[in-house]
Amino acid sequence: MSTHPRRLLLVHGPNLNLLGRREPGIYGTRTLTDIESWVRGEGASRGWEVECHQSNHEGVLLDILQERAPGSRGVILNAGALTHSSYALYDCLRALEVPVVEVHLSNIHARPEPFRHQSVTAPAALGVIAGLGPRGYLFAMEYLIDRDQ
Amino acid sequence: MSTHPRRLLLVHGPNLNLLGRREPGIYGTRTLTDIESWVRGEGASRGWEVECHQSNHEGVLLDILQERAPGSRGVILNAGALTHSSYALYDCLRALEVPVVEVHLSNIHARPEPFRHQSVTAPAALGVIAGLGPRGYLFAMEYLIDRDQ
Amino acid sequence: MSTHPRRLLLVHGPNLNLLGRREPGIYGTRTLTDIESWVRGEGASRGWEVECHQSNHEGVLLDILQERAPGSRGVILNAGALTHSSYALYDCLRALEVPVVEVHLSNIHARPEPFRHQSVTAPAALGVIAGLGPRGYLFAMEYLIDRDQ
Amino acid sequence: MSTHPRRLLLVHGPNLNLLGRREPGIYGTRTLTDIESWVRGEGASRGWEVECHQSNHEGVLLDILQERAPGSRGVILNAGALTHSSYALYDCLRALEVPVVEVHLSNIHARPEPFRHQSVTAPAALGVIAGLGPRGYLFAMEYLIDRDQ
Amino acid sequence: MSTHPRRLLLVHGPNLNLLGRREPGIYGTRTLTDIESWVRGEGASRGWEVECHQSNHEGVLLDILQERAPGSRGVILNAGALTHSSYALYDCLRALEVPVVEVHLSNIHARPEPFRHQSVTAPAALGVIAGLGPRGYLFAMEYLIDRDQ
Amino acid sequence: MSTHPRRLLLVHGPNLNLLGRREPGIYGTRTLTDIESWVRGEGASRGWEVECHQSNHEGVLLDILQERAPGSRGVILNAGALTHSSYALYDCLRALEVPVVEVHLSNIHARPEPFRHQSVTAPAALGVIAGLGPRGYLFAMEYLIDRDQ
Amino acid sequence: MSTHPRRLLLVHGPNLNLLGRREPGIYGTRTLTDIESWVRGEGASRGWEVECHQSNHEGVLLDILQERAPGSRGVILNAGALTHSSYALYDCLRALEVPVVEVHLSNIHARPEPFRHQSVTAPAALGVIAGLGPRGYLFAMEYLIDRDQ
Amino acid sequence: MSTHPRRLLLVHGPNLNLLGRREPGIYGTRTLTDIESWVRGEGASRGWEVECHQSNHEGVLLDILQERAPGSRGVILNAGALTHSSYALYDCLRALEVPVVEVHLSNIHARPEPFRHQSVTAPAALGVIAGLGPRGYLFAMEYLIDRDQ
Amino acid sequence: MSTHPRRLLLVHGPNLNLLGRREPGIYGTRTLTDIESWVRGEGASRGWEVECHQSNHEGVLLDILQERAPGSRGVILNAGALTHSSYALYDCLRALEVPVVEVHLSNIHARPEPFRHQSVTAPAALGVIAGLGPRGYLFAMEYLIDRDQ
Amino acid sequence: MSTHPRRLLLVHGPNLNLLGRREPGIYGTRTLTDIESWVRGEGASRGWEVECHQSNHEGVLLDILQERAPGSRGVILNAGALTHSSYALYDCLRALEVPVVEVHLSNIHARPEPFRHQSVTAPAALGVIAGLGPRGYLFAMEYLIDRDQ
Amino acid sequence: MSTHPRRLLLVHGPNLNLLGRREPGIYGTRTLTDIESWVRGEGASRGWEVECHQSNHEGVLLDILQERAPGSRGVILNAGALTHSSYALYDCLRALEVPVVEVHLSNIHARPEPFRHQSVTAPAALGVIAGLGPRGYLFAMEYLIDRDQ
Amino acid sequence: MSTHPRRLLLVHGPNLNLLGRREPGIYGTRTLTDIESWVRGEGASRGWEVECHQSNHEGVLLDILQERAPGSRGVILNAGALTHSSYALYDCLRALEVPVVEVHLSNIHARPEPFRHQSVTAPAALGVIAGLGPRGYLFAMEYLIDRDQ
Repeated sequence: MSTHPRRLLLVHGPNLNLLGRREPGIYGTRTLTDIESWVRGEGASRGWEVECHQSNHEGVLLDILQERAPGSRGVILNAGALTHSSYALYDCLRALEVPVVEVHLSNIHARPEPFRHQSVTAPAALGVIAGLGPRGYLFAMEYLIDRDQ
Repeated sequence: MSTHPRRLLLVHGPNLNLLGRREPGIYGTRTLTDIESWVRGEGASRGWEVECHQSNHEGVLLDILQERAPGSRGVILNAGALTHSSYALYDCLRALEVPVVEVHLSNIHARPEPFRHQSVTAPAALGVIAGLGPRGYLFAMEYLIDRDQ
Repeated sequence: MSTHPRRLLLVHGPNLNLLGRREPGIYGTRTLTDIESWVRGEGASRGWEVECHQSNHEGVLLDILQERAPGSRGVILNAGALTHSSYALYDCLRALEVPVVEVHLSNIHARPEPFRHQSVTAPAALGVIAGLGPRGYLFAMEYLIDRDQ
Repeated sequence: MSTHPRRLLLVHGPNLNLLGRREPGIYGTRTLTDIESWVRGEGASRGWEVECHQSNHEGVLLDILQERAPGSRGVILNAGALTHSSYALYDCLRALEVPVVEVHLSNIHARPEPFRHQSVTAPAALGVIAGLGPRGYLFAMEYLIDRDQ
Repeated sequence: MSTHPRRLLLVHGPNLNLLGRREPGIYGTRTLTDIESWVRGEGASRGWEVECHQSNHEGVLLDILQERAPGSRGVILNAGALTHSSYALYDCLRALEVPVVEVHLSNIHARPEPFRHQSVTAPAALGVIAGLGPRGYLFAMEYLIDRDQ
Repeated sequence: MSTHPRRLLLVHGPNLNLLGRREPGIYGTRTLTDIESWVRGEGASRGWEVECHQSNHEGVLLDILQERAPGSRGVILNAGALTHSSYALYDCLRALEVPVVEVHLSNIHARPEPFRHQSVTAPAALGVIAGLGPRGYLFAMEYLIDRDQ
Repeated sequence: MSTHPRRLLLVHGPNLNLLGRREPGIYGTRTLTDIESWVRGEGASRGWEVECHQSNHEGVLLDILQERAPGSRGVILNAGALTHSSYALYDCLRALEVPVVEVHLSNIHARPEPFRHQSVTAPAALGVIAGLGPRGYLFAMEYLIDRDQ
Repeated sequence: MSTHPRRLLLVHGPNLNLLGRREPGIYGTRTLTDIESWVRGEGASRGWEVECHQSNHEGVLLDILQERAPGSRGVILNAGALTHSSYALYDCLRALEVPVVEVHLSNIHARPEPFRHQSVTAPAALGVIAGLGPRGYLFAMEYLIDRDQ
Repeated sequence: MSTHPRRLLLVHGPNLNLLGRREPGIYGTRTLTDIESWVRGEGASRGWEVECHQSNHEGVLLDILQERAPGSRGVILNAGALTHSSYALYDCLRALEVPVVEVHLSNIHARPEPFRHQSVTAPAALGVIAGLGPRGYLFAMEYLIDRDQ
Repeated sequence: MSTHPRRLLLVHGPNLNLLGRREPGIYGTRTLTDIESWVRGEGASRGWEVECHQSNHEGVLLDILQERAPGSRGVILNAGALTHSSYALYDCLRALEVPVVEVHLSNIHARPEPFRHQSVTAPAALGVIAGLGPRGYLFAMEYLIDRDQ
Repeated sequence: MSTHPRRLLLVHGPNLNLLGRREPGIYGTRTLTDIESWVRGEGASRGWEVECHQSNHEGVLLDILQERAPGSRGVILNAGALTHSSYALYDCLRALEVPVVEVHLSNIHARPEPFRHQSVTAPAALGVIAGLGPRGYLFAMEYLIDRDQ
Repeated sequence: MSTHPRRLLLVHGPNLNLLGRREPGIYGTRTLTDIESWVRGEGASRGWEVECHQSNHEGVLLDILQERAPGSRGVILNAGALTHSSYALYDCLRALEVPVVEVHLSNIHARPEPFRHQSVTAPAALGVIAGLGPRGYLFAMEYLIDRDQ
């Protein structure tokens, strides 16, 4: 069992700061702040800290993961469009010694653009949850907490 | 809100009856009966019936889905290898008026065979959970129950 | 000229038993029973029996074709989604000594899913009728009856 | 119901004027004139005019369709080899407000050349009949007439 | 050395029950019953039981392999057209703890259809024999018996 | 500087004579005659003749370009569907010594048909304007006139 | 009509700050500062502000677009090499409610590297201008201003 | 031996009327008229008529081949860019009962555009000569004359 | 029945002289000399000569097959890596009038390198045996001897 | 003009020594010796030596070309199956300063195997003659001799 | 010879700051700081400055290269995962007037992920060294220094 | 540490004996003899023998590697065009127990022919050096010598 503090990272990639404004038919009407607060609250009620980050910069996401993940017990990652192209994120996840669950708000397999049907980061994660909306973050959190115990 | 009884279908495809025996490094050591009992119990504790089916026959899976899904409020589907080839299941899921969550025990994106990286049924589901082991069924159930309310 | 009884097989594959209920914008509002009765009646008025089968099971379709086609004078086949993947049906049609016309209710070439644009069974048929709705079955029947005489 | 005269267009593309001479094992022994007369006669017996055109020129086919289709109630199109390459015909069929049935004498899916297995014009038609020989034109005519009423 | 009875399974997939009738130029003139009797006899002469199954149903083949293979010492499999598409059979063979030899009567590499040139089940077998006619079954049997000793 | 008269060619390919009638949601409501008059007028106001041609015939387009382009100072080309398939137009543009700007009314990159995403003629042009409606012709004209001076 | 100030964004991606120095045979000899001043001046003469940004960072481009585009009336975007790979920019453009015109100095269709022939951002723009040098920015500006009125 | 007059057709496709003017580094400096006269003279010296045609119209080429080839003893065809796309020419050559030799002035295999590396018409010809300049026509003529005797 | 002496050729391609030393986990521990002696002995016991050759030179393999195969009654060929690339061997096997069985020690379909999954020589053989180790040579020999009689 | 002796090389690759015996329906009934004598004689009658080589060894062909081509005035090459795979021959032809004409007896574009439709050596030759039988060698020789003068 | 100071840039991309911690079986146990010191020391011993940079940000790498490379005499670049996707880096390297050697610690051609087998930046470098561990940097440095003199 | 004599093999494949004569713009002006002498001298100065081989024959290269590599301590391989096609060399390198460094004089990734961008032998080497001219051999030698100690 890990000796790190009971902390999870919740990391969002490009354009997810637009949640609530961006194509609500696909992504829902809740803002990123709403979702982060909600997940943080659910985590707190189980005695866990959920540290939240969002960036439009691949490099910032890599910096955060490198710096904060090793001292955490798990990562919940929604890398946005970088899911489909960032080999650097894939490499980073492989190099970390922290379990990762990848989450997508929409069902990426049902979206019309072919590029959304393939995740280049998923092979470096424990698993993937897609299409279950913000609820997916909670499931990922529950999984990482229970797995940790 | 649906007037159907509070019932979910849990449907497993080919070879998943071998769980516990089949490549435990990938699929874990719990048998299908164990998992079904566990999910059924969790459902019962929330006041829901979980009706379980497994078949190695694509045709039987189609028959079950056609007959039992319309009277249920949701389907949890792990179609096994048919996930990657059965357009008939895709057509069936599209024709049903019941929400479906697709679940895979292993992280199909991290498996070495390229055929496992694509799901032909996922575009007809609400979402997909992969790689979280049997826990994925519970998350799917929770999602379907909460969504129903 | 064949010495078999004047009988045609009308064979439907997976999910076509849902006709009338399934995506009526694409497949129309007539049920499979309606269509079968109508084709049977039109056949009877010309002195021909039309024997109707539907199954969601590839194996049952193969069994039926193997058992009933050799004693018939033609087959009208709408294999549903198996059209696009079943090499076993292709092999079966090639092995039979009975003429086959493949029929699709919708214009498969205009459907959005790429898999629908290719028929793996069509090369083993005499011809294909697609997109003309239930009328296509009548045309297939007329063709097979006239060709037989 | 249309207020246009009861007229259908029967339009043939490149090399179909060679019918009867060209590879009779594939295309049959009836000439194009025979077929056109036969279809015209069948149309007349139902009170419809069938106006026949053939050209080896894609441009002429486009001119004819643009000029004559809007005043007609349907088009029966066998575009020959242009079926497999003419995006201009596809665009033209989409721009017309007239129903179109695509007909091929041979079963294009069973021909050895891969290019014959794909029709670029079919997505703009109501449906396709292939492999039923000249009879296919009659079926297309019947379909268009009945649909019109 | 196995403590199971000295038994091999000989399993045939779709359309192989038509042997002797189906395209004899490719598949030969001996019926499946002939071949099964012959292999069974050869097995008996070496003190081994050869248990024979054929089905047009993928699901039945999976059921048989799951139920009968674990108590046997080897499987000789000619999956017919399913060879080229059934990931479920591949998964099943991988899950079994029984050695498998895949046999094809014809040389699938020399057949004109491209789909026949790839076997999706072969990677889960010990080896493959193709194109040596019914004799291939005997070689597979000899191999499995000798390997067992 | 060219000694040719101050003349530009405005050349339209197949189906563009249908403008105003054809899918106005995509192509707008102005007719080709309207557009040609407008561009001609704008050219005249700058002291340039704009000679307009439209044909559904690839051959006629080639003839026109070969005959009229060498005596002109620039070509504005909207080749319609031939944009995506005509190597002959590409060869012709390369052989001419006249600058060419390719124009598309709609944003071909945003259209759903994959064939529209590639232009085989564009590599032989100076540049491409797509999706800016009839205004694109004016921009092309301005560019060619200014470049000429 | 928009109530935002009359402002356009002119956004340049990676390496475009090297203009004038970088491969002048392809990109011309004018520096980015020259071009920005020129476009700004032309905008001012029509009563519009043109706000100019360049960054080599995909993340900065996303930040700028998210922050500045909603308060502007249009975006002129030359994303440089990100044009061919950045799904994040595509997502961002789709999420914005501001019209975008994509501009390339060179004719990307005529460049030798295959990757330059496809724009992944163009489907989210109104249109594309390529190969007309710095003039393309003016055309884009004119289009956006006129469209706004 | 044929009873037709001793006549060959020499048929040129799109843009070959530009020979001598078009990219002389690739196609040489002799005009089409020069080449036709030279081939005609060489034919005459052997007692054969060489009938020459050129058109930019695929349809005209088909008309000519259909009308003139059956009464000739051979065809020398340089279809220009249609070589790489015209299935209609391929169909026409197959339908004719006249031997055809395909000729290209340049070595199409060494040209940079990938589309030039494949001829869709060549499979319907006796053979192909490429890259030997106008001399290729003479070789084709010699071959057809000698073969005829 | 052949009048040639009762002789078979056993031909091995590149690197197979390393058997016993090369990756014994894949290829086993028996040397090529062992295997050749064993096959030769088994042949002799049935009254047949087995003539053995190995070369790392494609050219030598072709020379041997051309010189020795015509006077033999069959060829057992393990072409090593040339299996996957040598069109010259394919041509040679087609030109010979001697039956050929292709043998691979390992199950090439289960090897990780994609190039090993396709044999370019197999279409010119009677059949293929793969994955049965040295035993495969005996089966090939038995097949060729029995077929000869 | 070259100062080398008036000598051409005629080089044949694998299996062409079998001419006359190998698939005469495709390759004709004349032996390689016949053809070489004939070409040599025709060359001699024009005052040129034709030096003939054949080898089944790619390496020998490279050695010959490297040693003999620099002192010759041209090469006629029929590389047999190496045409379709030998990058080494391509490199060698590029490195030589001698003109090369590639000749194939059959029309490689009309052969059923896809690999025959592409020549990897042709881009390094002046041109290609295919399908004109042994006559092709004479044409190549004539071309090289005339070009030399 | 350059008048710039004797300075080389050593530039590392994403995740290479993890060296020593990240998958030491692949990347070795030396940290990036160790490697940079070592290369810097080796450079100093030859009288050259080696300026070292690492960033997880593509944009920062571009900024550094644009700012520091023009005043240096060479660049040693290990772009990490950006090697396989960054067209912006490729463009930047092409725009610089400084020689570049690309270095990879591991043999990217032997890694299992297909994306690692292609470098999009290598065509803009002088050369590539892969798989020789940290030693590769020294070789690159030696090459650039010697080349400079 | 190896007990073999301190010997390295330097092995060159097809056409590399032409160095100095062959396309000096790409391959430089030094002959193979020069390079071999230079590498041999550098090796000798470090107390190592460098044994040099060149052949145009794949088979000879395999023979040499099989015979000489096991008694050596490393191989420097420039396989020329065989780099891109020889699975036999790949197999051979895998079977050897000697470290191999692959060297290319030119930067194969920057060459225009696509076939040069992939090395099929590289996955069996320790690493690859490309584009650094003859210097690459010295680096490979240094690496192998240092690694050995």
